[in-house]
Amino acid sequence: MLGILRDLRGITATPGRGCTRLAYTHFEDQAHDLVWSRLRTISGLVREDDAAGNTFIVPTSALGARKPILLIGSHLDTVIEGGWLDGALGVAAGVSVLERRACDGRADPHVGLVIFRDEEGVRFNTGLFGSTVFAGGCLPSDLEAKAPDGVRVRDVVPDPDGCCEYQPPVHPAAFLECHIEQGERLVATESEVGVVSSIVGIRRVEIVGVGMANHAGTTDMRRRVDALVPVAHVVARCPTLVDGLDDAVITCGRLQVNPGAPNIVPGRVTAIVEFRAQHDATLDTIEGRLRSLVSGVTPAVSGGRCAEIGLGPIVTVAPTPTSDTLNTLLSKILESRGVPFLYLASMAGHDTQLAARRCRASMFFIPSIDGVSHNPDEDSREADIELAGDLMLAWAERCVRECL
Amino acid sequence: MLGILRDLRGITATPGRGCTRLAYTHFEDQAHDLVWSRLRTISGLVREDDAAGNTFIVPTSALGARKPILLIGSHLDTVIEGGWLDGALGVAAGVSVLERRACDGRADPHVGLVIFRDEEGVRFNTGLFGSTVFAGGCLPSDLEAKAPDGVRVRDVVPDPDGCCEYQPPVHPAAFLECHIEQGERLVATESEVGVVSSIVGIRRVEIVGVGMANHAGTTDMRRRVDALVPVAHVVARCPTLVDGLDDAVITCGRLQVNPGAPNIVPGRVTAIVEFRAQHDATLDTIEGRLRSLVSGVTPAVSGGRCAEIGLGPIVTVAPTPTSDTLNTLLSKILESRGVPFLYLASMAGHDTQLAARRCRASMFFIPSIDGVSHNPDEDSREADIELAGDLMLAWAERCVRECL
Repeated sequence: MLGILRDLRGITATPGRGCTRLAYTHFEDQAHDLVWSRLRTISGLVREDDAAGNTFIVPTSALGARKPILLIGSHLDTVIEGGWLDGALGVAAGVSVLERRACDGRADPHVGLVIFRDEEGVRFNTGLFGSTVFAGGCLPSDLEAKAPDGVRVRDVVPDPDGCCEYQPPVHPAAFLECHIEQGERLVATESEVGVVSSIVGIRRVEIVGVGMANHAGTTDMRRRVDALVPVAHVVARCPTLVDGLDDAVITCGRLQVNPGAPNIVPGRVTAIVEFRAQHDATLDTIEGRLRSLVSGVTPAVSGGRCAEIGLGPIVTVAPTPTSDTLNTLLSKILESRGVPFLYLASMAGHDTQLAARRCRASMFFIPSIDGVSHNPDEDSREADIELAGDLMLAWAERCVRECL
Repeated sequence: MLGILRDLRGITATPGRGCTRLAYTHFEDQAHDLVWSRLRTISGLVREDDAAGNTFIVPTSALGARKPILLIGSHLDTVIEGGWLDGALGVAAGVSVLERRACDGRADPHVGLVIFRDEEGVRFNTGLFGSTVFAGGCLPSDLEAKAPDGVRVRDVVPDPDGCCEYQPPVHPAAFLECHIEQGERLVATESEVGVVSSIVGIRRVEIVGVGMANHAGTTDMRRRVDALVPVAHVVARCPTLVDGLDDAVITCGRLQVNPGAPNIVPGRVTAIVEFRAQHDATLDTIEGRLRSLVSGVTPAVSGGRCAEIGLGPIVTVAPTPTSDTLNTLLSKILESRGVPFLYLASMAGHDTQLAARRCRASMFFIPSIDGVSHNPDEDSREADIELAGDLMLAWAERCVRECL
């Protein structure tokens, strides 16, 4: 586990500042290639990239969906200045299983690896893109999502049309993933493993304020139309929108001011607000509160004429339960080994939730030190990383016996 | 007037999106060169650039401060996607006076032009830099101001040491400037000219929020340290800080979120707040209110641990009265011609306020259509532009007779 994880950490756009491998960049490509260069020595394995650029490393006998197989995987893209384990851990566990299941240099015909593209959604403001394609859920509009530099998803995927009319290169009977927790619940409960019972629903929306750029000195307070002030009102109040909703979080992580000069009244401001919860009803409540806040904020803003403020389309990922069958197999392994574990709901989105639309799917977590993630300080104990590989092997073996 | 203004408009980084000639870029250099290429045909004029790169186009007899002269001028840098008249109008008026005062192709020995550098302060977040050097007010720390790309002022000025130990190349007896109003007071009062009785004081400060970047899903509301929420609270309340202060404005025109991804809790946020008023006492009141707001906001923020929020050093430009003597000369001209005019205080900073530290200085405004400025739509009526040239000539002639 540690060897390949360290090799992957070595590929980055910003040495010394964590890992930066944005989706569909040379750095992400290089990470996919690194995994294949390691597994290609096992005979009977083949690499097949799909329309979205997801990499499948699978037994040749499984190609063309001839025989159902077990897929293990995760993603290798990162956020900007992210950590070394987010995504990479699950890929490393898959590599480890493929290597340890190989017999006399020949691949196990029942198990394959998948590496999904663009899980993080940083570049195009769309998360879980590769696994969405795998799930058969890619819409033509998803291909038009644009990065700040104007590049669209359709400009970078190998086969845009094939993303929307998708056939997976193999027939998956089940999908397994492991991941760092990115939170502190395992540490707080002295658990070594978290079995994920469901994965959070996410809604993401752009707040747009449209005012009028003008001179910050000569445009008096009554005459100005400042796009930032009402958006700042909304952003400042966002935390209150999840008051009383225990399992929910809300974040504004991106806010852009145009033209962005200290002596110009802001003419256009965009802010992305994202909220998460385990149930659609909770997401509906938050969305309703956000709509009230946005429609009510303008009259409350002191000084100036009212800048227009509105919400763009809501990007939605539905809350997803994982497979009870797979979870039961894993919990039996954990019980038999005496590993303390917890069932928990994931507050992070994961490829597993999309894979679940195509086959049985589930995942487990190992503890994150101090709960830190999406940060160069992201880390886990070496013993926990090795345990992830061991558990994934045992879980895969049980699945092959009982689910194929 | 219109010919040279249109030529200057042709120099820009962003065709079709107004004028962009940031300080110390090739575009600003080209604008200075264009003016000199037009005036060099008048014999007896010489170009001399000072330590800050301010361009002086003056009679050779005035060089080395041998004979006091009248200086007319303004600046040629712009904001990003700004208008075609801000600064350029005053330079064009100076060009027009030098051309019309020349006799048989020989320069008037009493009048010169100065083009100041970096009036807008967009690139290095320091305004009025060139005229500050001319005023003898440049501090070593001013040279360390840094653009977002890491370039410092000292890297771009021709002679950093000479900026702080400054001797002007000529001895100015008076400085005259004309400028667009960038507001609507002239139009509202049906005035054709505004005689500027004083120039606004400006204070600019960076608000810094320091939290901890972390995963926006797995970091629950109580555990997160969001740097944006408290800064947004301050920015949203900024307009209230000038309540009851009629002549004051406050603006946050720049706000930057790091790392800036929708699914990461903001770890560091900076916002620049600028406020302006005609009196130091008013500026003190606003600064006091801002300090209270910043120190009081954190406990009020809902959800999450407290991000640290603080204020950087305050950049100050003092309020400045203009020369009564010069204003009286100009008002007599306006009265004798029957031009409706207004005495007013300028809410924009101008090079005149720095020139006033070295000699008598004043300025006048012509109306801005709809009060728009720092915007590609900035404009004035052609008749008003031509009037500016005529008035500057008459004012300069009176000054030469009565002030030299």
